Amino acid sequence: MTELRGSSTVRVRYAETDQMGVAYHGNYFAWFEVGRTDLLRQLGVTYKQLEAEDVRLPVIETRVQFRRPALYDDVLEIRTRLVEMTGVRVTFEYDVVRSGEDDVLARATTSHAAVDARGRARRLPEELRRRVQ
Amino acid sequence: MTELRGSSTVRVRYAETDQMGVAYHGNYFAWFEVGRTDLLRQLGVTYKQLEAEDVRLPVIETRVQFRRPALYDDVLEIRTRLVEMTGVRVTFEYDVVRSGEDDVLARATTSHAAVDARGRARRLPEELRRRVQ
Amino acid sequence: MTELRGSSTVRVRYAETDQMGVAYHGNYFAWFEVGRTDLLRQLGVTYKQLEAEDVRLPVIETRVQFRRPALYDDVLEIRTRLVEMTGVRVTFEYDVVRSGEDDVLARATTSHAAVDARGRARRLPEELRRRVQ
Amino acid sequence: MTELRGSSTVRVRYAETDQMGVAYHGNYFAWFEVGRTDLLRQLGVTYKQLEAEDVRLPVIETRVQFRRPALYDDVLEIRTRLVEMTGVRVTFEYDVVRSGEDDVLARATTSHAAVDARGRARRLPEELRRRVQ
Repeated sequence: MTELRGSSTVRVRYAETDQMGVAYHGNYFAWFEVGRTDLLRQLGVTYKQLEAEDVRLPVIETRVQFRRPALYDDVLEIRTRLVEMTGVRVTFEYDVVRSGEDDVLARATTSHAAVDARGRARRLPEELRRRVQ
Repeated sequence: MTELRGSSTVRVRYAETDQMGVAYHGNYFAWFEVGRTDLLRQLGVTYKQLEAEDVRLPVIETRVQFRRPALYDDVLEIRTRLVEMTGVRVTFEYDVVRSGEDDVLARATTSHAAVDARGRARRLPEELRRRVQ
Repeated sequence: MTELRGSSTVRVRYAETDQMGVAYHGNYFAWFEVGRTDLLRQLGVTYKQLEAEDVRLPVIETRVQFRRPALYDDVLEIRTRLVEMTGVRVTFEYDVVRSGEDDVLARATTSHAAVDARGRARRLPEELRRRVQ
Repeated sequence: MTELRGSSTVRVRYAETDQMGVAYHGNYFAWFEVGRTDLLRQLGVTYKQLEAEDVRLPVIETRVQFRRPALYDDVLEIRTRLVEMTGVRVTFEYDVVRSGEDDVLARATTSHAAVDARGRARRLPEELRRRVQ
């Protein structure tokens, strides 16, 4: 069975901070995106390829707990797990930690529906599903 | 009792779309922010004033259901409700609809802790709490 | 002759600030976008319609002078002028001021090429050119 | 003399694309920021340290030529040069290319003033100036 965990690294940009002196909460979603696309890449499937096969995976639900702030210039590790994949839906979980530390700064879940370019529900490609067995 | 509901309007910017042709999910959080700051303003308290009184309200938890996409140039109404305020925590709920329509595009909750400039827990100002009785 | 000036209003979002306590420079570009799309709308043409006619207007060049910071919760006026339109290119100029004030916070130019959905150069629709005579 | 050139790598995020199917022009500024902060780091000075010494370097002027679009998932190289440093001002130039290619996608300049936490002009630290002799 393929390992369904991945780890990505991002450094907090000044653009991502706000005047509270921490990373703005809305910017974590781009980091979660980095986490799951890296995990898919590691499974041998790029999101770019999925789009070429007329698959999009919009987020349909998310939950995030922000426990401690991420700060400017912090090197963050996004630990991503693929926790569910049905024919029409995928769910990922994420832990954000400072690189080399274990305290979880944020813990999140994103669920995604498989849709085509027009936004209509469709099934995930067999190829992708096979890779996550 | 003060009305604890507010309504804000935003128009989806091109900058907020992604190549799926819809508003990127991470950008909704700036709209929720518009919703709750407008609601606070309507209650007679600006977030800017709160900061001047050494209160910050970072998001500590959020849940969002994205039901239908928001599209470029859509005029969106953010319907915001203040649903809970304790001495140290505030929770808001949001419905995002297209202006003049009733279908909910997204439904969300954000919970906020009251902290000072250094990020330490503190109590919300009495003044603010009185206004939301 | 049509008036080729427009005025738009935006309020600075917390999401748009950075830890310097001012609006991050990269975020002004979304405001310039608001300025020029409002101006086009006032001329009777929406950018959305242009896209439906297979016209896109990517920015090919920009210059900005940032003179004074825009601050959180500031209500800004974006004063936009359409200063040049050839068959294949459009140029806008912008002054950003605090609403009700005259000090220019930022002064900018954006030039745009007309391209089709595949990014190939194309001519601007006659309809649009007529409106800006 | 210290080498005043640096090279940084970023991968284009989905969050950074727009519905034209390319990276939104306003998002390049975060990449330029990555370029110049990496270059400073390579010179032995982090922007974080500068802030701790009460130095901020807000952008006061920028020019960008966008020649070819950057696309989702592209790995971009930001080639940064420090081209001028006076006691109160720093200027950087940037070329953005796809990693391994030489076509310039975008060419830019940013000029920065040295200011303190309150936004008042101040001199750059001698330490920094010495490192760029």
